[in-house]
Amino acid sequence: MTAAPDAGSPAIRFRDPQIEMAHGAGGMASRRLVEGLFAPLLLASSTDPLGDAARLELDGTSLAITTDSFVVSPLRFPGGSIGELAINGTVNDLAVSGARPEAIVATFVLEAGLATDTLEAEVRAMSQAARRAGVAVVGGDTKVVEHGKADRMYITTTGIGRALPGLSLHPAAVRAGDKVLLSGPIGDHGITILLARGELDLEADLRSDTRSVFPMVEALVHAAGPGIRWMRDPTRGGIATSLNELARDCGLSLHLLEESIPMREAVRGACELLGLDPLHIANEGQFLAIVAPACAQAALDALHAAPGGEDAAVIGEVREQPAGTVLVKTRYGGSRIVDMLVGDPLPRIC
Amino acid sequence: MTAAPDAGSPAIRFRDPQIEMAHGAGGMASRRLVEGLFAPLLLASSTDPLGDAARLELDGTSLAITTDSFVVSPLRFPGGSIGELAINGTVNDLAVSGARPEAIVATFVLEAGLATDTLEAEVRAMSQAARRAGVAVVGGDTKVVEHGKADRMYITTTGIGRALPGLSLHPAAVRAGDKVLLSGPIGDHGITILLARGELDLEADLRSDTRSVFPMVEALVHAAGPGIRWMRDPTRGGIATSLNELARDCGLSLHLLEESIPMREAVRGACELLGLDPLHIANEGQFLAIVAPACAQAALDALHAAPGGEDAAVIGEVREQPAGTVLVKTRYGGSRIVDMLVGDPLPRIC
Repeated sequence: MTAAPDAGSPAIRFRDPQIEMAHGAGGMASRRLVEGLFAPLLLASSTDPLGDAARLELDGTSLAITTDSFVVSPLRFPGGSIGELAINGTVNDLAVSGARPEAIVATFVLEAGLATDTLEAEVRAMSQAARRAGVAVVGGDTKVVEHGKADRMYITTTGIGRALPGLSLHPAAVRAGDKVLLSGPIGDHGITILLARGELDLEADLRSDTRSVFPMVEALVHAAGPGIRWMRDPTRGGIATSLNELARDCGLSLHLLEESIPMREAVRGACELLGLDPLHIANEGQFLAIVAPACAQAALDALHAAPGGEDAAVIGEVREQPAGTVLVKTRYGGSRIVDMLVGDPLPRIC
Repeated sequence: MTAAPDAGSPAIRFRDPQIEMAHGAGGMASRRLVEGLFAPLLLASSTDPLGDAARLELDGTSLAITTDSFVVSPLRFPGGSIGELAINGTVNDLAVSGARPEAIVATFVLEAGLATDTLEAEVRAMSQAARRAGVAVVGGDTKVVEHGKADRMYITTTGIGRALPGLSLHPAAVRAGDKVLLSGPIGDHGITILLARGELDLEADLRSDTRSVFPMVEALVHAAGPGIRWMRDPTRGGIATSLNELARDCGLSLHLLEESIPMREAVRGACELLGLDPLHIANEGQFLAIVAPACAQAALDALHAAPGGEDAAVIGEVREQPAGTVLVKTRYGGSRIVDMLVGDPLPRIC
């Protein structure tokens, strides 16, 4: 293993005096915190600090490991709950890193006074999600803090997976001409959470898209194998943030066609009313893939044939210029630059 | 992998209507929660729900994985801090499961408004502890919750380790006549935390014992190898709880000699004043081992020669009767039964 960096002279570039909600939103502020503080002080030099999962080689076995804390509010919402997210979110981070999820461990930070029924419902939700995703929960830990020191419950899951053979996923593998694939409609999760809070005088027939994307990833890998350059699940910060990170990391440009991006009318309408960009809204059951042009049709066909991939689409392509940028061509013929998420319009969505 | 249990007919024996602090204290109430709710609903049937780490066999590689959330209050205390505990606690769970710690991933739940200096100090503490323990931090995640929804910060770490060859640790391997070894003085951590809260009119020259026990475990394994039956780090609930779990699981009796149990005068004095049993007080840098009698002297010599093991001692032995019980022979010649921790005299000690 690579040792932790020496703490004697780390390049701490993070200068914000205190932590704000935006530092947990998965956008620009999160990136500054991770790259400016966590990575130089704590992370092994071989680590991709913003990747979905870390790679470990142990005795010739190639493993992926990923961890996430879940603090979503409310705990339950149409289509899912914190327990379900805690399993699917970790399963999906493994899947898009090109690994088959094998085992999960989970911890709970519980607030004293929490109703056992509430806890039991989430443990059941985790169990059902794990069974659906074909992954075993093999261990865990529970801590309890005084009433008022947590918001009912926080769950942390860590997943370990086995690398699927024949894949080499990396931003540096992306080439001009590659196609951008998206597994299905965007924004369902984030807008569902927003509406579930009941703070807006707005209703819509929407459900979170929380689910395991592994079956779709597996179908894609079967169809396109080494033609897959990169995958990511666009959770916090939406597809705009994931694709901006990719554009920056590969030094190329991503040109999206707005009308090709699948989106439900309810999401489009809510975003228009609220002044939100749907490209910034979190998803919990979708993934992005960059594939070589020769594989694009086979990849799309495979996604369409996989359960849950019916709405998959090619939403754009990779070009040389303008380097490091995401552009979207609108329905009206113009082009606009799509930035990473800045600030935190939707706190605690996962 | 073993699939998660079927949720259709689980045996939910946990009937407490709500979660109390004691459910996180590592004693009787924690055991009821884990065995009565988490294990039947969530954990794979092959899992030892109260073991320090789960075992995974992937492509012939034998791995250990363990996870813990850390919610200690205060964040900093003599001898350590939450960041240091978060690394050492997970390293130690791997070590006593007979695995060499290889990699750690970490998540942070931060309260909005937390001073960056406070976070940076803990990230540095983690980095230093990881370097000392020879383990790499390879990934992580950060969530932020509103001010008042967490107590500054909670850290969750998950560790993955590689099984040391030649070990077969299990309560069922324990035999009458085996010796009980302890690596050093008990109670330093718990009493240090208690005093650091400043709620008692009591002072003592004490520091937490937080450290990696892996070097001591490695020395023990080198000396006693397959003669080691079982190991455990007696954190929450102290050595009384760890040994009661063992006694119950192996169906034998553990006879301790009070005067042989290493303990500092400051811990003894504080416990007497406060009416606490030092056998129930948490440790963060000690471990218990059960070893075959033929190996006991070599094991003890190896611990004495290992850095930090100078105060290791044989504190008792395994007998047939009374089955499932821990007894301690006091300085005054009598014997008393030592129970698991009940309630939570020292909340949030890790």
